[in-house]
Amino acid sequence: MFENKNSRTELSDLGEFGLISHLAANIKSKNLKTIKGIGDDCAVIDRGDHFELVTCDLLLEGVHFDLSFYPLKHLGYKAVMVNLSDIYAMNGTPERIVVGLGLSNRFSLEAGEELYEGMLLACDRHNVDLVGGDTTSSRSGLVLSVTAIGSVAKESVVYRSGAAENDLICVSGDLGAAFAGLQILNREKKVFIENPNIQPDLSGFDYAVERQLKPEARKDIVGALKSNDVVPTSMIDISDGLASELFHICVASSKGCRIYEDKIPIDVETVAIAEELNINPTVAALNGGEDYELLFTIRQSDFEKVKAITGVSVIGYVTAESAGLALIDKSEHETPLKAQGWDGLKMRQE
Amino acid sequence: MFENKNSRTELSDLGEFGLISHLAANIKSKNLKTIKGIGDDCAVIDRGDHFELVTCDLLLEGVHFDLSFYPLKHLGYKAVMVNLSDIYAMNGTPERIVVGLGLSNRFSLEAGEELYEGMLLACDRHNVDLVGGDTTSSRSGLVLSVTAIGSVAKESVVYRSGAAENDLICVSGDLGAAFAGLQILNREKKVFIENPNIQPDLSGFDYAVERQLKPEARKDIVGALKSNDVVPTSMIDISDGLASELFHICVASSKGCRIYEDKIPIDVETVAIAEELNINPTVAALNGGEDYELLFTIRQSDFEKVKAITGVSVIGYVTAESAGLALIDKSEHETPLKAQGWDGLKMRQE
Repeated sequence: MFENKNSRTELSDLGEFGLISHLAANIKSKNLKTIKGIGDDCAVIDRGDHFELVTCDLLLEGVHFDLSFYPLKHLGYKAVMVNLSDIYAMNGTPERIVVGLGLSNRFSLEAGEELYEGMLLACDRHNVDLVGGDTTSSRSGLVLSVTAIGSVAKESVVYRSGAAENDLICVSGDLGAAFAGLQILNREKKVFIENPNIQPDLSGFDYAVERQLKPEARKDIVGALKSNDVVPTSMIDISDGLASELFHICVASSKGCRIYEDKIPIDVETVAIAEELNINPTVAALNGGEDYELLFTIRQSDFEKVKAITGVSVIGYVTAESAGLALIDKSEHETPLKAQGWDGLKMRQE
Repeated sequence: MFENKNSRTELSDLGEFGLISHLAANIKSKNLKTIKGIGDDCAVIDRGDHFELVTCDLLLEGVHFDLSFYPLKHLGYKAVMVNLSDIYAMNGTPERIVVGLGLSNRFSLEAGEELYEGMLLACDRHNVDLVGGDTTSSRSGLVLSVTAIGSVAKESVVYRSGAAENDLICVSGDLGAAFAGLQILNREKKVFIENPNIQPDLSGFDYAVERQLKPEARKDIVGALKSNDVVPTSMIDISDGLASELFHICVASSKGCRIYEDKIPIDVETVAIAEELNINPTVAALNGGEDYELLFTIRQSDFEKVKAITGVSVIGYVTAESAGLALIDKSEHETPLKAQGWDGLKMRQE
């Protein structure tokens, strides 16, 4: 009614990263203690003897989750995990979260309790306090906003921007399973919609479904790096897929990279699901997202130390920027990588 | 599809405060540095030489704002202000915010820019850094989540729980105007819907409309208290209406109160609008909300110092808990106060 419509640029033309960098372009930190603002997994604030880390993630119904197959307890758990993962990606320790929760009247108190149960379980496992928040009604879907606060020793903070030429590229766990699990859940949902008498059949897909519904932030990897005396040169968590995160590290570090297809860790169940659904498992790993594993680079001199850590794979190395980003496939062909990670401004779920 | 439906308690039976206290009942802080978790305007964290303050507010389209009359720039401004107001209510200084933003495709880049412009203007005025956040698509309405972080000297932190018998009850600015402004905006919206050729007529209502659309967090009052060497015994910001906030202070402090109707500061424009719309202006002040003024209690010995601060009214005093909460009206009758502040789980806007 009082709207002022001038020029109009569609958000879908920009994509999530385009929007963020456009909006962030005008933002300058006024406060000297703000070491790092927008542009990494967390904001970094100087607290004298240590750095404080702050990160925020919004989870919206219909975009980030589908309540028809998402148990609320799992959703609460995941909402916390995706934030803790950002703190670990800075090599930090999460300490506290605050939660904004928008519930519509279709939810009951018991539903709210289930959500909180999941959040508190995640907090317990990571020794984090839920210290506050805001609960309100929502006219549309369920809205979950989690802000996590953590800390890191000043000499241990790891940004996206520190990768150097010839550093080794490492990844924790395995990739693509959360994406494969989502495909299975979506398939079973379709079956269920067509015939509500048929119960969802998830047998044989336990691992992939759990990776989608109940991801674990890699506290253990950050701990193992520390106890093996390794500070990565750069790090990021894998929320949007390996390719997209490699781009973030390479752009922030002004570098290129080579990764080897046969070194990318993919679970056998993911491979089986991918074959069944006629998806290339490497594409699931590169572009699927929601793995919440850690992608990091290390100096070559740290290779032996990292080799001692269970569940870390070396998948490639950092090159000069001019070499670009490429995947060396199983037949030794080099293909340029594309950052087609999930675009938050298009819709994820069907 | 995998839902487990057992007993069901409707959220509307509990209300926002009921829900929060129910859910918070199971939450215990594990970390010794968490001084105060849920239950005040901010969480309080021990940072060695000072306390850190953290607060989060969720603003959802259709619940907290109506975009048909809410310019996006104002909305961004207000989203930041309501959070800064919580930091000031702890007698603190805001330092940083992180923002979660959910935009649907009906918004353009320019709309996102307008929102950010408002947020950054609010940050500038209060010397706050916008250090990070999350931008995502929304399938439903606009979602804005702001988390503010601030600090306060340990000896200056003010909780809701510190009010003592015979303390004086003070309020900054005037009350009820934001509510009156909202009524005017809703009225003009109806006129506009009925006849889109009629332009909204807001003349003569500038102050009330601005109080609704562009509230100001009372940094100046916190500054004036400090420079007059006054630390309130308790404090809260008025987001849900004077009555509701008095209940929060009295319950947290185990006290009662007496406030005088003729001492409640109400602007002449609010009175005029209330008369025009056949609303009791005192009710607007008690239950309207969104004033973002500060309600605080002081020791009687600080009365002269507070009298020196422009724009602060003494409206009553703290009693023993057994005396309950009451309003003494203009004909000197005592009426029990009811905490019928806005209930976030019912819908605010028509």
